Amino acid sequence: MKLTSAAHGTFTIAPTPFHEDGRIDEASIDRLSEFYGEVGCAGVTVLGILGEAPKLDAAESLAVATRFIKRAGDRQVIVGVSAPGFAAMRGLAHAAMDAGAAGVMIAPPPSLRTDDQIVTYFRQAVEAVGADVPWVLQDYPLTLSVVMTPAVIKRIVSDNPSCVMLKHEDWPGLEKITALRNFQKDGSLRPLSILTGNGGLFLDFEMERGADGAMTGYAFPDMLVDVVRLSKEGKRDAAHDLFDAHLPLIRYEQQRGVGLAVRKYVLMKRGLLPSDAQRKPAANLTAAARAEVDYLLSRVARVDKRAAL
Amino acid sequence: MKLTSAAHGTFTIAPTPFHEDGRIDEASIDRLSEFYGEVGCAGVTVLGILGEAPKLDAAESLAVATRFIKRAGDRQVIVGVSAPGFAAMRGLAHAAMDAGAAGVMIAPPPSLRTDDQIVTYFRQAVEAVGADVPWVLQDYPLTLSVVMTPAVIKRIVSDNPSCVMLKHEDWPGLEKITALRNFQKDGSLRPLSILTGNGGLFLDFEMERGADGAMTGYAFPDMLVDVVRLSKEGKRDAAHDLFDAHLPLIRYEQQRGVGLAVRKYVLMKRGLLPSDAQRKPAANLTAAARAEVDYLLSRVARVDKRAAL
Amino acid sequence: MKLTSAAHGTFTIAPTPFHEDGRIDEASIDRLSEFYGEVGCAGVTVLGILGEAPKLDAAESLAVATRFIKRAGDRQVIVGVSAPGFAAMRGLAHAAMDAGAAGVMIAPPPSLRTDDQIVTYFRQAVEAVGADVPWVLQDYPLTLSVVMTPAVIKRIVSDNPSCVMLKHEDWPGLEKITALRNFQKDGSLRPLSILTGNGGLFLDFEMERGADGAMTGYAFPDMLVDVVRLSKEGKRDAAHDLFDAHLPLIRYEQQRGVGLAVRKYVLMKRGLLPSDAQRKPAANLTAAARAEVDYLLSRVARVDKRAAL
Amino acid sequence: MKLTSAAHGTFTIAPTPFHEDGRIDEASIDRLSEFYGEVGCAGVTVLGILGEAPKLDAAESLAVATRFIKRAGDRQVIVGVSAPGFAAMRGLAHAAMDAGAAGVMIAPPPSLRTDDQIVTYFRQAVEAVGADVPWVLQDYPLTLSVVMTPAVIKRIVSDNPSCVMLKHEDWPGLEKITALRNFQKDGSLRPLSILTGNGGLFLDFEMERGADGAMTGYAFPDMLVDVVRLSKEGKRDAAHDLFDAHLPLIRYEQQRGVGLAVRKYVLMKRGLLPSDAQRKPAANLTAAARAEVDYLLSRVARVDKRAAL
Repeated sequence: MKLTSAAHGTFTIAPTPFHEDGRIDEASIDRLSEFYGEVGCAGVTVLGILGEAPKLDAAESLAVATRFIKRAGDRQVIVGVSAPGFAAMRGLAHAAMDAGAAGVMIAPPPSLRTDDQIVTYFRQAVEAVGADVPWVLQDYPLTLSVVMTPAVIKRIVSDNPSCVMLKHEDWPGLEKITALRNFQKDGSLRPLSILTGNGGLFLDFEMERGADGAMTGYAFPDMLVDVVRLSKEGKRDAAHDLFDAHLPLIRYEQQRGVGLAVRKYVLMKRGLLPSDAQRKPAANLTAAARAEVDYLLSRVARVDKRAAL
Repeated sequence: MKLTSAAHGTFTIAPTPFHEDGRIDEASIDRLSEFYGEVGCAGVTVLGILGEAPKLDAAESLAVATRFIKRAGDRQVIVGVSAPGFAAMRGLAHAAMDAGAAGVMIAPPPSLRTDDQIVTYFRQAVEAVGADVPWVLQDYPLTLSVVMTPAVIKRIVSDNPSCVMLKHEDWPGLEKITALRNFQKDGSLRPLSILTGNGGLFLDFEMERGADGAMTGYAFPDMLVDVVRLSKEGKRDAAHDLFDAHLPLIRYEQQRGVGLAVRKYVLMKRGLLPSDAQRKPAANLTAAARAEVDYLLSRVARVDKRAAL
Repeated sequence: MKLTSAAHGTFTIAPTPFHEDGRIDEASIDRLSEFYGEVGCAGVTVLGILGEAPKLDAAESLAVATRFIKRAGDRQVIVGVSAPGFAAMRGLAHAAMDAGAAGVMIAPPPSLRTDDQIVTYFRQAVEAVGADVPWVLQDYPLTLSVVMTPAVIKRIVSDNPSCVMLKHEDWPGLEKITALRNFQKDGSLRPLSILTGNGGLFLDFEMERGADGAMTGYAFPDMLVDVVRLSKEGKRDAAHDLFDAHLPLIRYEQQRGVGLAVRKYVLMKRGLLPSDAQRKPAANLTAAARAEVDYLLSRVARVDKRAAL
Repeated sequence: MKLTSAAHGTFTIAPTPFHEDGRIDEASIDRLSEFYGEVGCAGVTVLGILGEAPKLDAAESLAVATRFIKRAGDRQVIVGVSAPGFAAMRGLAHAAMDAGAAGVMIAPPPSLRTDDQIVTYFRQAVEAVGADVPWVLQDYPLTLSVVMTPAVIKRIVSDNPSCVMLKHEDWPGLEKITALRNFQKDGSLRPLSILTGNGGLFLDFEMERGADGAMTGYAFPDMLVDVVRLSKEGKRDAAHDLFDAHLPLIRYEQQRGVGLAVRKYVLMKRGLLPSDAQRKPAANLTAAARAEVDYLLSRVARVDKRAAL
């Protein structure tokens, strides 16, 4: 089923599992996929920035995406297709959609500066992948150094009917969610799913500002599922209580470079990955850092038993 | 008394208080100074990046620094003297030291790239301010886009005896503290005070890695003082319990641009500032954001009564 | 006389002359000013990026500007007032206008990204300096990393009646001049003087695209005056012949960092400066580089006797 | 024959020819290859930044490289293999070497900052492509924003015996060539071929500073061949006379974005390409720009008949 602007809930960003020698670990893709279903994820996003996508060659990228799609069950799979050029983007997008992806995700290249350059880029990207492929606009200035105002996002969404979702990870970004939802209230913006990233660091308030859910790869997607649900049910204090219990670890995972190592280490401790191996270049955890993560997990476990590992 | 490498504890980054019409609010400088003494700060840093230093002209900068120095009591005052050129840096540094500052703080200009460029810059800066002026090396890649390895910091410290303190706010930075402390263990780096910034976001573990204290402007310097003390006393769980209670607000204050507005708003609620006015350009808090901060304060107050405002 | 949108001809960017020990060389300001008059410059711009403005403190900046203004004779003097904050900008702008400047020049700070951020910045800058102060908009993406589309320039000019001139140094930029002139033809942009910078590297075609003259600091402003005149007289081949004779040296002066050293060295050889001293940080010419400049001058001199030094 | 540090002469950067509909134009690859042989190029570099490499998918990249290799005759072919990750780099490098390439070229990713990060990156890149693959280190700070000191280049060359050539395009860069050649004189750097890029803008003096030749894609590689030869023969004035005649066009081609359009337009006028088509995103030449290039060609032709088109 193709992605629509009605999408909501938690789309977890899946890591790409590797064996210690750098080969892709397909069995772990299956195990992760099963887990995502068990904990209630609505979708899975593969080949994102933290999915080590640039470290795969073209064939590997498609193989990883296809395996996740095959094992997705009821979950929709979004495939990151950001690339330095449109030929590679088109190739992966078509192959992924043929394999059963629900949609693709596109981030802007860091060279874009002016409003018009940004709008033009996404128009050309849609020409490349085809107007029938639903896609997610990734808005991540901290890493990509491209800044899109709410008005520019509105132009992109208006120009391209196939843009059905915003992956919101501007920082700060709470007012941006409010601005976009206000555009919709005054009728100037059509329906758009907004899922939020940034490692989940502001998920508590992003939900209250009008987000439809989370799209991030924090090592406890089951917690993201719960916070999204509690927030939608109006259980504000309960949502914050659970979120705040995890926040020290979320914050720790937020460290650039180190973040993915923390995430894979926790997933390994949870029994979901046999190894926390990354391909090079990678920042690995020292013994001191592992001990800090262990301590953080023990503290989270006082509130959330799933962290008792 | 001049700053030395033995400095430790909490040096709060002071905001520059303004009246609603943009004039400097000198009475609030006095009130803040008194408060910093009451809560046990070891020092005060003025004219930092979050002190709105670039928004002051040369005469105002000196006036603000002098007022803080006059009211500092036992606390050492460090004056930020980063400037686009050495003439302005020299002028402010000399005037501040004449007025009684304990030392100055210098950040690298964003244009520096290579290790040698960074080392040369600080050598020239020391020539400009004079080798007798103790100074703090500010290491803040996320904002300044200048990346210094531990080895480069060692070169700067070795080349310049007047460098007595590192304001550490690399991100991630825990391993950097460990690397510098290891240099000292193996005898290749002389004593150096390390205070940590980054809004306090990693203070809990930074202390455990060997930091001497905090230098940041979080709106509860009294909490920073307590966490630094508890950590030094080896009361690990107690330090983390207090820190974690504040973390949701620390995280909220971490939002770029908005952070200073949050900080001044909380200081206003604490009765330490009559106004949260900033000079232009400024990001102001919306009503929604203020309500979020109020909610966060009410949650912090369940653990720390000082947040019951 | 205040600067208006009718300004045209060559506004030379004046270097700031220093003695070998770093003091400002006021006698050389007088000699340069006299020379600018003799060769037919229409104006002089002081405290530009290549005027080493950031290396001066506030008092020195005003002293240099005032001296140039006093000696300007018929030439209009534009004072660069770009600053990290509006207080410093306001202070220098008012003092310069009081001293008799024709107008000021403002560059955007490198942090600006979106169209709206750029437009807002210049609105606030005009509030700071006062709506009665004529000013030049500096558009220099290569150095400032702020990219303004023709539409954004139009918005700035429309919003701010006191903006009377564009210092055009986008690269590439020929189509931008054409776009702005086309806005004027279709009535959507009011009169605006366009002078071009970039060290003069594209002056030949910039004039043909509709520029009103040059604003750059090439060491032969007399050549710039001639090329601007020849081009306006429609003597295309003659303009290019003269320009091309200088191009190897213009190109050599274009090297970042080294450029100012080349410029001061040539001015010294022309007898206009007793020294090519710069304040630190500075890139100095090696003996090999000086010999290369000498060789280039000897080749220029085959066509333009003024280069026979 | 594999590339060695004895390589010298002109290695032209080949454009990737496209049909108007975006398909690769293989017949033009053959025609260009023949031409490069006729005019005396020593080598051909394919899939460089101006070869529109990022616009090709993996299969197309290999196809273009292979076609150029098959038609290269006596010329050595270097294949650009810079990629966001090592898997893609390894794949293309191995396939290209299997197809008969003489070596590969690797540029650093823009995220690198410190000396150690740069050195580590190239060590890992060599692990990826294999220590038996000769490679060219591309040093292009203006576009890649990675700055390598001569000392860092020395470390890379010393660490990696398979690094046999530097593509020098730092700006300014004349002193860097001198510094590297001085390392060799004092015995601290082994033999290394240095070819220079930057569109040829400083080729005249780069040769005099010790470069072994040119590696750039200016539309008249025959002129580059002549200037390199004249310079090596010690015919200084003749080399500069020819170079200076082309400089106005070289300068025009230097405009970012537009440069490739100029280059393809001139190659089309020379009968070497049937079309100047680029893949999107592309900056196209306006009628005004084409007329300017035509005028520049007519002026070059007064000295160099090859420009009479």
